[in-house]
Amino acid sequence: MLEDKSPKKTELSSLGEFGLIEHLTRNFSLEQSTSVKGVGDDAAILQFGDRQSVISTDLLIEGIHFDLSYVPLKHLGYKAVVVNLSDIYAMNAMATQITVSVAVSNRFPLEALEELYEGIASACAIYNVDLVGGDTSSSTKGMLISVTAIGEVEKGNAVYRKGAKANDLLVVTGDLGAAYLGLQVLEREKEVYKVNPKNQPDLSMYSYLLERQLKPEARKDIIELLQKLEVRPTSMIDISDGLSSEILHLCKQSEVGCNLFEEKIPLDPTVIAGCEEFNLDSSLVALSGGEDYELLFTIGQDDYEKIKGNPNFTVIGHMTEAKEGAHLITRANTKLKLEAQGWNALN
Amino acid sequence: MLEDKSPKKTELSSLGEFGLIEHLTRNFSLEQSTSVKGVGDDAAILQFGDRQSVISTDLLIEGIHFDLSYVPLKHLGYKAVVVNLSDIYAMNAMATQITVSVAVSNRFPLEALEELYEGIASACAIYNVDLVGGDTSSSTKGMLISVTAIGEVEKGNAVYRKGAKANDLLVVTGDLGAAYLGLQVLEREKEVYKVNPKNQPDLSMYSYLLERQLKPEARKDIIELLQKLEVRPTSMIDISDGLSSEILHLCKQSEVGCNLFEEKIPLDPTVIAGCEEFNLDSSLVALSGGEDYELLFTIGQDDYEKIKGNPNFTVIGHMTEAKEGAHLITRANTKLKLEAQGWNALN
Repeated sequence: MLEDKSPKKTELSSLGEFGLIEHLTRNFSLEQSTSVKGVGDDAAILQFGDRQSVISTDLLIEGIHFDLSYVPLKHLGYKAVVVNLSDIYAMNAMATQITVSVAVSNRFPLEALEELYEGIASACAIYNVDLVGGDTSSSTKGMLISVTAIGEVEKGNAVYRKGAKANDLLVVTGDLGAAYLGLQVLEREKEVYKVNPKNQPDLSMYSYLLERQLKPEARKDIIELLQKLEVRPTSMIDISDGLSSEILHLCKQSEVGCNLFEEKIPLDPTVIAGCEEFNLDSSLVALSGGEDYELLFTIGQDDYEKIKGNPNFTVIGHMTEAKEGAHLITRANTKLKLEAQGWNALN
Repeated sequence: MLEDKSPKKTELSSLGEFGLIEHLTRNFSLEQSTSVKGVGDDAAILQFGDRQSVISTDLLIEGIHFDLSYVPLKHLGYKAVVVNLSDIYAMNAMATQITVSVAVSNRFPLEALEELYEGIASACAIYNVDLVGGDTSSSTKGMLISVTAIGEVEKGNAVYRKGAKANDLLVVTGDLGAAYLGLQVLEREKEVYKVNPKNQPDLSMYSYLLERQLKPEARKDIIELLQKLEVRPTSMIDISDGLSSEILHLCKQSEVGCNLFEEKIPLDPTVIAGCEEFNLDSSLVALSGGEDYELLFTIGQDDYEKIKGNPNFTVIGHMTEAKEGAHLITRANTKLKLEAQGWNALN
C-alpha cells in the first residue's frame, strides 16, 4: 500500500510549464457537445443555448506567485481577480462572475482575510462581476488563492490564440515592462528593510511602476473599444508571462511567423529611467518581464485605419509565413530569433 | 510598506468554516442578470440563454484534505474530480466540464503527475465530463489541487438547499459511514507501517470501506433515476461533511425543523462490524463521519409512492415547522437536539 509506485523519475523542470500541461492533457478529448474550446487558450469556451460561456482558472500560492512581506492583502485580492478577468477579456469576452477559494495557515487572523476580501470586492465592483462561489479552508503553509472567472461572448465573437494570418499587424495595448520593474523596486526595498526596519523610503517616484505590479488592471476597456471601432482581432492573448512568450503562443497556434520591431515596443518614460537605475535593458524587460496584463492581438491590414492614431494601441510588428520564423528586428536592424524566456531571462 | 496593517487579531477558528465564508461574503451582492444563485449552496447557477449553467469549485491541499502516504495518486485524481461533480449533481444538474489546476513542490517527478492525471481522465470518462482548462505550477510545499466543475440544468429544474417544507420526507441514498471507517483503517495501517515497514497487511475484509474512502463515486445515477421516476426533490445537498451537518444546512436554508430517526439511518454490515472493531458508535459515524458523497433530499409526501421500495432510497425522517427544531429520535425513543459536529465529534 505504501510502496513507491513511481519508480521512473523525470524532473518536472525538464518539460517547462507549457510543455507539462500539454503533456498531461494530451489524451483528453472533448466529448460534450457544449465544449467548444478546451485546454490551450487563455480560457475555455462552452456553448449553453445561444450564448457562449468562457471559463478561466488560476491558482496563486504564497512564496511562488506573491510575497506577503510587501504585497498588501487588499491589493493581493484585487490582483488575484484581475489576472483571471484578463484571461476572459483576452477571448474578446465580457467577464460576468467569479468564484474564489482561499486557504490559509493558522498564522492569519480574520482581519487578514477581511482585507483580502475587500480587495476582491473592489475588483468585483470595478469590473462589474459577481462573486458566486468558493470556500475557505486551512493550509499547512501560507496562503493559497484559487480564482475561476466566467464570462460570456456571442457565438462567433470569441477570439482565440489561433487565427492570425501572414501580413496581419501585431498590436499591443498600453506599455510594457513597468510591472517587472515595480517588482525590482519592491525586492530592493525588502532588502533595505531587513537591514534597517525603521527606514521609511520615499517611493513616490516609482508610483507608476509599483501600481502596475501591485494593482494591475485588466483591459476590459479595450474589448469595449474594439467593439465600438468594429475591429475583430484575428488572434489575441493577454500578456502575463512577457511579450516574447505571448507572441510565440500566437505564432505556434496560428501557424505563422512574426517580425517584431524593437523600436516600436511601447515603454513608459519611468520604465526607461528605472531600467537605467537598475542597469537593465528596457527591451529585455518588456520582452520577458511579464505581469503587464496588456492585450496582444493581430488584425488584418484592412483594419489599420480604424486603430491608427489611437493612443491605446501600438503596432509593433507583423505576422509572416510560418517558415520565416519569429524574429525581433533590433534598433541596429539585426534580426534575432525570438525566444520565450519568460522570467528566466531576468533571473 | 511593511508595517502590520491588521492590529486586530481574531482567530479564524472562532468562526468555523461556514461562519467564515458567510462573514467574508456578506457584503457581496449579485448584480449581473445572469447570476441566478451565488455563494451558499452546493454550486452557483448562471443563466446563459435558455439553459442554466452550474459552477462548483474546490481546493484540496496535501496534509489537510489528503495524505499521500496512503492515497494512491490515481485515486486522488479521481476523487478530486468526483467530489466536485457531487456538488453539481446535488443541484439536480448534469456535470459537463471541469477545469483542474495542480501545484506541486519539486519532490514530485513527472510520473507522479501522470498518475494523478490518469485518475482525472478516468473520472472524466466514467462521468462523461470534459477537461477544458487549468494549469500546473510550483508550490513551496506538497501538492495542491483546485477543481472547478461546470454543469447544466434546464431552467426551473435546479434544486437548492432551500425549498423543504414541513411534513416533507427526508431521504438519503446509499449507506453512510463507510468512508470515515475506511479512513480509520488507513490511519491504523499507517501507524503499523511506521513500526514495521515490511508488514503486508491483508485488507481484503475492509475493501468496501477502503473503496468508499479512496475512490468514492458521485450519484449521477440518482439524478437520472429521479428524473425517470418524475420526482423533483424540494431541497437537496450532498453528504460531504456528515449527515447531521447537511441536515442542518437544509433546515437552516429552508427554514424548517426536522425529526431524524436513528433506526432508519442506512448502514452497511461492514460498517457495523468496523464500528465494533474500532469501538465507535455507528450512528455517530454516520451522523458525523462525512465524505460519503451520497445525496440527501426532501420530497413532498405525494411522491412517496414513487420511491417506495427502491433500494437506492431510505426515508430517514421528516421535516417539521422551524420552531420545533432539528432532532434525532434515538432507538431508545429519546429526542436529542441535532448538532453539526462534522469531524470534530470523532476527534
